[in-house]
Amino acid sequence: MTELTKEYIDNLKKIIEEKDDVKAKELLKDLYPADIAEIYQKLDLQEAIYLYMLMDGEQAADVLMELDEEDRHKLLKELPNELIAKRFVDNMETDDAVDLMRELDEDRQEEILSHIEDVEQAGDIVDLLKYDEDTAGGLMGTEMIVVNENWSMPKCIDEMRKQAEEVDEIHYVYVVDDDDRLRGVLPLKKLITNPSVSKIKHVMKKDPIAVHDSDSIEEVTQTIEKYDLVAVPVIDSIGRLVGRITIDDVMDEVREQHERDYQLASGISQDVETSDNVFTQTAARLPWLLIGMIGGLSNSIILGGFENSFATNPKTALFIPLIGGTGGNVGIQSSAIVVQGLANNTLKEGNIFTQILKESIVSVINASIISLIVFVYNFFMLGDRAITASVSLSLFTVVIFASIFGTFVPLLLDKLKIDPALATGPFITISNDIIGMLIYMFMVSALT
Amino acid sequence: MTELTKEYIDNLKKIIEEKDDVKAKELLKDLYPADIAEIYQKLDLQEAIYLYMLMDGEQAADVLMELDEEDRHKLLKELPNELIAKRFVDNMETDDAVDLMRELDEDRQEEILSHIEDVEQAGDIVDLLKYDEDTAGGLMGTEMIVVNENWSMPKCIDEMRKQAEEVDEIHYVYVVDDDDRLRGVLPLKKLITNPSVSKIKHVMKKDPIAVHDSDSIEEVTQTIEKYDLVAVPVIDSIGRLVGRITIDDVMDEVREQHERDYQLASGISQDVETSDNVFTQTAARLPWLLIGMIGGLSNSIILGGFENSFATNPKTALFIPLIGGTGGNVGIQSSAIVVQGLANNTLKEGNIFTQILKESIVSVINASIISLIVFVYNFFMLGDRAITASVSLSLFTVVIFASIFGTFVPLLLDKLKIDPALATGPFITISNDIIGMLIYMFMVSALT
Repeated sequence: MTELTKEYIDNLKKIIEEKDDVKAKELLKDLYPADIAEIYQKLDLQEAIYLYMLMDGEQAADVLMELDEEDRHKLLKELPNELIAKRFVDNMETDDAVDLMRELDEDRQEEILSHIEDVEQAGDIVDLLKYDEDTAGGLMGTEMIVVNENWSMPKCIDEMRKQAEEVDEIHYVYVVDDDDRLRGVLPLKKLITNPSVSKIKHVMKKDPIAVHDSDSIEEVTQTIEKYDLVAVPVIDSIGRLVGRITIDDVMDEVREQHERDYQLASGISQDVETSDNVFTQTAARLPWLLIGMIGGLSNSIILGGFENSFATNPKTALFIPLIGGTGGNVGIQSSAIVVQGLANNTLKEGNIFTQILKESIVSVINASIISLIVFVYNFFMLGDRAITASVSLSLFTVVIFASIFGTFVPLLLDKLKIDPALATGPFITISNDIIGMLIYMFMVSALT
Repeated sequence: MTELTKEYIDNLKKIIEEKDDVKAKELLKDLYPADIAEIYQKLDLQEAIYLYMLMDGEQAADVLMELDEEDRHKLLKELPNELIAKRFVDNMETDDAVDLMRELDEDRQEEILSHIEDVEQAGDIVDLLKYDEDTAGGLMGTEMIVVNENWSMPKCIDEMRKQAEEVDEIHYVYVVDDDDRLRGVLPLKKLITNPSVSKIKHVMKKDPIAVHDSDSIEEVTQTIEKYDLVAVPVIDSIGRLVGRITIDDVMDEVREQHERDYQLASGISQDVETSDNVFTQTAARLPWLLIGMIGGLSNSIILGGFENSFATNPKTALFIPLIGGTGGNVGIQSSAIVVQGLANNTLKEGNIFTQILKESIVSVINASIISLIVFVYNFFMLGDRAITASVSLSLFTVVIFASIFGTFVPLLLDKLKIDPALATGPFITISNDIIGMLIYMFMVSALT
């Protein structure tokens, strides 16, 4: 782990300026790809390209995949297709290669594929590109150690040595039968501790955990997490081993999913980072603000229908923020609990009714406490019985309504195969604000 | 992966009822610990205890750690300390054992430790318990394969075989010098592909990625993710290898951190799941609702100071939800972007000023667009120029104010070492609601 001090970067820039290949190579040799990617952000494009040309193929490919998408895009635009094929794609694990290809347009994909020298690699990439991006097949790579269940242990170790050259890190050895169907997994530990056993099938772990190539990424994530794996084999519909998914890719997916949920709950409509420019940020944020604005204007129309109430009793206006805010807060809580329950799989088909019932009880308790406190406060401080009663009755109704609405909508979206996280954040706040105003105005009209 | 159908569970319950040890053992043998933990949830306590007694030590220990905390707690309450020590703690990896011990009170910890037969295991646990729970030291375990840099490859493989019995899964071999300082890492691949090299130090990867025992869990997570590791070695202040942290524990931490952030953003004050009972849920949710209520009542006091405005011009009341809602939405967006930037480390010390500047530009754009649209709408639809002007001016001011406030507060909290996620959700909505009302009433008073 090299500390990327200012001196370090300045020194590097000087070396690049002097085109001192030997020194630059020496510096690069000891660095991890992730560190080089970090350095890259501090260099301009020409400096970065100079460094790229000095790296050997595998290092260059690793660094490329560590860059963020925007930087990678800029770099790829500058490089010829043949060089991308031979320098990067040929040296990448197939899952990374597929990720890279998906970022390019189709013409470029084809041209790059035609330049790949390793036909097997090119074939694997073409096959993998056929899978839907959001399935296990779209996430998997083909680099893995595969042995036949009938092989002897020494033959197996021999074969592993050959295969290991293609594979970066080995965590499990997968065992297949003569028809390539996955039959077992061999933890590396067994290879080390039982080297003399006659046949693989006697030491392998049978009935291995696997995912299907058509499984969703969510299912893959849950499997890896549930069984604490560092990689999971992928099988096709008839049980043949077709690839493997490693935990680093799963972790990236988990982080992305969390960030998406978080951003939806916060009213940000697309992936946006502090480092994005002003226009990306505006584009991600304005849509929800406009929806909120429409909600606010709708509320002004609703309240406009009761203008006389404000004229005859201006105290009515004082509690608009309380009613709207409480409805929003309750709704966000309820929807967040459901979205999280759906995401971590604790909320299952069978107990949806229980969840709504439970939510109703929680909401009655919360509604009672809040409306009672507000009632006592207004009773002594406001001096207007009709408003006091309207406010507390409205609060009670709004809390219960917002809870059920906040629970029900994400469940409904999930049923309709729409991301339930859409139902959190501004959507629920705005709906509950409007519902709150309707209830409040109805109560005020009825009681004053 | 066994499908846990109703028939399967019913069959199991029958076997348990008949106390058919042989059949029950047969069933358990093929199951993964995570599956047994899932089955456990469908059994009553006595049935579960019966099954526990049939499992061998290692399986029982694994299942125990797969249970959720509540179920584990219930089970441990029923079992004597000596059995917990010999059946579970003795058979666990040290990091799991420490997690388990931390869930028990001190008296029980000591008694259990006194019953552990493996003195080395007990010593490791006592040492690990000294670390702060939120540091790398508190998360690490001591099970790993360690070899000396001066050993030959065959000696190393011999030694690994011995050590491997203690270790569940092997991913890396760590290489130390004669003073136990970490000098390198040996990917297992090298052991398989280079078995004949004379000395370890010639094949190991030097300058390995490691974390310090005092590093925060956040730093550990970032290191593992950045370098795509499946385990990271932990060193003490003078570089000695003291333990290792595996990716499954890191993933759990990442998930917990995300859920905490998400819940804070949604106004839920403690970890709560759909499966928690009504009182836990109420306790997690009521506090924020009460704070929201106090905010709402404060707003009623502020608006009360302008009661005459509503009496003389009731149209004033119609835009209260619009102003309050927009302020809330903007504030949540800004704070969420900052919290996420801090969490994934893209927002660093140096660029905080840039962030506030960028946020200001985004907010001016958003504020201009929204207040202009509302101005045009009100100009034609409302027929009251003073209110039309007040509303749009207020909106403009509120959006800018809420953006800066939403950016600044989490940054400030982070500086003060308070979780910045506290600044998202209800806190920011409520503050911005109040600020919005103050700005609006000031504008109305000034312009009408």
